[in-house]
Amino acid sequence: MSGDYTVGDYLLARLAEIGVRHLFGVPGDYNMAFLDHAMAHDRISWVGNTNELNAAYAADGYARVNGAGALLTTYGVGELSAINGIAGAYAEYVPVIHIVGAPSTAAERTGAMLHHTLGDGDYRHFIRAHAEVTVAQAYLSAGNAVAEIDRVLATSRRERRPGYLSLPTDVAVSPAEPPAGPLVVPAPEASARVLARFTDAARTLLAEAGTLGVLADFLADRFGVRSELADLVAAGQIPNATLSMGKGVLDESAPEFVGTYSGAFSTKRVLAAVEQADVLLSVGVRFSDSTTGLTHRIDPDRTIDIQPFATYVGEQVFAPLPMRDAVRALTGLVTECGRSWARSDLPPVSAGELTDDVSSDSADTLRHSQLWPAIQRFLRPGDIVLAELGTSLFGAQGMRLPAGAAFIGQPLWASIGYTLPATLGAQLAAPGRRTVLLIGDGSAQVTAQEIGTLLREGCTAIVLLINNGRYTIENALHGGERRYNDIHPWNWTLLPAAMGGESVTALRASTPAELSTALARATDPADLVLLEAVLPPADLPDVLLRATARSDAAAHDAEPAR
Amino acid sequence: MSGDYTVGDYLLARLAEIGVRHLFGVPGDYNMAFLDHAMAHDRISWVGNTNELNAAYAADGYARVNGAGALLTTYGVGELSAINGIAGAYAEYVPVIHIVGAPSTAAERTGAMLHHTLGDGDYRHFIRAHAEVTVAQAYLSAGNAVAEIDRVLATSRRERRPGYLSLPTDVAVSPAEPPAGPLVVPAPEASARVLARFTDAARTLLAEAGTLGVLADFLADRFGVRSELADLVAAGQIPNATLSMGKGVLDESAPEFVGTYSGAFSTKRVLAAVEQADVLLSVGVRFSDSTTGLTHRIDPDRTIDIQPFATYVGEQVFAPLPMRDAVRALTGLVTECGRSWARSDLPPVSAGELTDDVSSDSADTLRHSQLWPAIQRFLRPGDIVLAELGTSLFGAQGMRLPAGAAFIGQPLWASIGYTLPATLGAQLAAPGRRTVLLIGDGSAQVTAQEIGTLLREGCTAIVLLINNGRYTIENALHGGERRYNDIHPWNWTLLPAAMGGESVTALRASTPAELSTALARATDPADLVLLEAVLPPADLPDVLLRATARSDAAAHDAEPAR
Repeated sequence: MSGDYTVGDYLLARLAEIGVRHLFGVPGDYNMAFLDHAMAHDRISWVGNTNELNAAYAADGYARVNGAGALLTTYGVGELSAINGIAGAYAEYVPVIHIVGAPSTAAERTGAMLHHTLGDGDYRHFIRAHAEVTVAQAYLSAGNAVAEIDRVLATSRRERRPGYLSLPTDVAVSPAEPPAGPLVVPAPEASARVLARFTDAARTLLAEAGTLGVLADFLADRFGVRSELADLVAAGQIPNATLSMGKGVLDESAPEFVGTYSGAFSTKRVLAAVEQADVLLSVGVRFSDSTTGLTHRIDPDRTIDIQPFATYVGEQVFAPLPMRDAVRALTGLVTECGRSWARSDLPPVSAGELTDDVSSDSADTLRHSQLWPAIQRFLRPGDIVLAELGTSLFGAQGMRLPAGAAFIGQPLWASIGYTLPATLGAQLAAPGRRTVLLIGDGSAQVTAQEIGTLLREGCTAIVLLINNGRYTIENALHGGERRYNDIHPWNWTLLPAAMGGESVTALRASTPAELSTALARATDPADLVLLEAVLPPADLPDVLLRATARSDAAAHDAEPAR
Repeated sequence: MSGDYTVGDYLLARLAEIGVRHLFGVPGDYNMAFLDHAMAHDRISWVGNTNELNAAYAADGYARVNGAGALLTTYGVGELSAINGIAGAYAEYVPVIHIVGAPSTAAERTGAMLHHTLGDGDYRHFIRAHAEVTVAQAYLSAGNAVAEIDRVLATSRRERRPGYLSLPTDVAVSPAEPPAGPLVVPAPEASARVLARFTDAARTLLAEAGTLGVLADFLADRFGVRSELADLVAAGQIPNATLSMGKGVLDESAPEFVGTYSGAFSTKRVLAAVEQADVLLSVGVRFSDSTTGLTHRIDPDRTIDIQPFATYVGEQVFAPLPMRDAVRALTGLVTECGRSWARSDLPPVSAGELTDDVSSDSADTLRHSQLWPAIQRFLRPGDIVLAELGTSLFGAQGMRLPAGAAFIGQPLWASIGYTLPATLGAQLAAPGRRTVLLIGDGSAQVTAQEIGTLLREGCTAIVLLINNGRYTIENALHGGERRYNDIHPWNWTLLPAAMGGESVTALRASTPAELSTALARATDPADLVLLEAVLPPADLPDVLLRATARSDAAAHDAEPAR
């Protein structure tokens, strides 16, 4: 067998090993030799996208659900089209492997004037561009391929960030030996002494605490401590909240979950549980302007700030200390205390949580105040919910998710259009789960052609398209109506048919009653559902109403990154 | 007035000065302060695109017709989405200015955790990525803005390549003075002594020549010597040809025009006129695999190779020598000779040029052999023709263009989907000219949403969509049918209505007779025309039939760039 075994086969074996079962991308003449091998692989399926940016978004959505993802593009044109999606995976810690089919090493050596080059004989422009947005890169050769593939994949897994592999046409088909053993991913460095010192410091802090809160964010998901976090919360019935970027990492159906923390724009209940706790256990949190408007008020001296490889308590740094070890140590301490941290003094649920708006008739114009409670009721345990940055994400962050639901958004990188292709990826990663996308019309136009791929792949996602005729979020942030934020009106319910949808459910709702009927029809979809919800242009979800009452300018000049 | 005058206003004044009348892009919260000023500008109109890659393509198409173009994106997500289009402008020498609205300088100084950053406090990742694909870059500050804007714009104009400006929110609204004088663009360096030495060398070569040929390419267009080239050809009735990348730079309706030179895949007539001329006058030529498959056989000792800033005659280099001066000198020498270089010994037109295929009935399946002659007949003087890389460009390069027609393709960068947004740009640059786009279904899906913008802007372009259900060019190059090259079938004639087209002509033709009827209806369009021409999947234009008879592998390992 190893006689015909190639570098491409080795790469495919390693991808399969880390859990990649679908390879996204677009064919091109520099990647087709490798693609032929991918097509023949028994554990990896090819999913062709309509363009490379969409492929990168799909691979990102896939990796968020599946733990690993990969895409294949062609040199220059393809990889640069995808680079914004790769940068998003870097910013938000998603381990996506970007494989780029490149011209032959002979062409590179001579600087041949080939298509997809800049015509200047320099073949390394694009790997350098990718070095800005990936955690590891390699230009593969027949000699280094095995070592470099392993290095890039292992680094990507350890750091939970994208890696880049440039695979020249001749290297892809060079002979190689199959992997001799499993991929070695170095565990995060740990130290028993550091762990002991940290435990002592935390014990001292907890001993003085009358109230305790847990705040969790996306890095708790990315570094795989979801179940340890559940143990921590359960050990002491600790009131808990997430940031919107980490939504879904805690069980929101549990009574101790208080809501989404968004700094000064939080509900009173969340503010009390988070900012006013005597000690805050903060797990995998990164504050950014899109999650808190940088209005968070967290006292470092009363916070145990657990990051992936280090933990901070006030001025003290405990490193190396893997996130998992730190969370487990806290669970031990909380169990040691042997008490419940449940609070009856928090402001009640009604003060700010999503509740049904009964102020208007179901024949009225549909408004955000009715939309989000209706979607909250629609969701079921185990659903995967994707919410596009903008009114969709801000609306969705007010919902209480059912148990076991996953939530995908992109608040930090905030690239509009992301969630539509990410829906393709998420559903292919978990075909047995119901997938619900919440997206606005402006965002959906950015990546609209991927609806064709959803249809081709027979996806049964429910696409709830919020049509308000403009980039509402931009108007909200910049203060006032601007003509340049208007969106050209599309006939959304016609679009799936135009993109080749023979079996599709296209619905439209502009009143609460119509929404209710449409959601009922969408409950157990047998094919793709596109549900267009028509909302008034200037209407906003609650949190945005609170946020836009303040200036955005102030928020933009705050706080350095840690 | 200058009290309210800002850096943004200064930039807009300079853009208007270099001929920019339309600014493409997508709004974002880091660019809206500048955009407000752009909207208020009396000489520049805002054209919002559905995404940033499409905006870059539109600005590129605009600049090819107009001489200058610009786009505005937002930081990180927007600029990286556009970067593939900017790289294409770099590879193909198109002066596009990429303006990026960036976070405030205060945020940059503190490394704030803002959306659209990578969250690592480093705000220069994306300007570094752009440094790989632009000729000049600047991170603007209130202090350097005027000087840096002028430097980037002047360099872009001199080199005919894209420039990049990072415009922080606070800098955009900083006070500035209006331009004190015109933008100074340094002329290419010249030397009377070099020109004289070149003229002597050329005279010697011409004196020995029995036959003479002119070969022109895209750099003759980009460096503005189209009329000097016409003078040269006319001065001696010199047989002439272009490469596909330079198509349209010569008058193809003149009898001395012999066709498109594509190396070994050329017609016999073109081969005789180009490769077998005693002396070849080569103007602005760059050979690449997509124009000649690197199969060109040009003897440097018998070639005068005129490049933008230098000319090569055999081993001799004449520099500095601006292209225009070199072409004029040749015209002088040809006039001096006082003879006609017209040739009656060339193989006849019938040997390879596009002629009507009369072998089949008009009720038959439509084939490439009928499509391209029909389009050739359809074209009128002054038309702007865009041909997407792939079967469209290869088919179109066999057509003889009417006088004054412009031709836009992207053979070197070869990014599929480019021409659809470029059509928007081209038509806005020249609304009085008829614009005809030739594009395949696979390519059109990549950037399909820009059909919505064509509709919104009331463009009357004729979009001829060649539907053959796959990436035919990739199958042709890689040798054989591959499932991954299949395209999900869309209902193309329904698409414009789905994208908000209330006034649109959607036509479909799958026989020669239907094509003829459809083209007749499309002749003088009052609104956007989408004409879907259905072709058999494996059918190819002539030049591809000739090219794919040879291996692509050989071509990929040839020739270094000059």
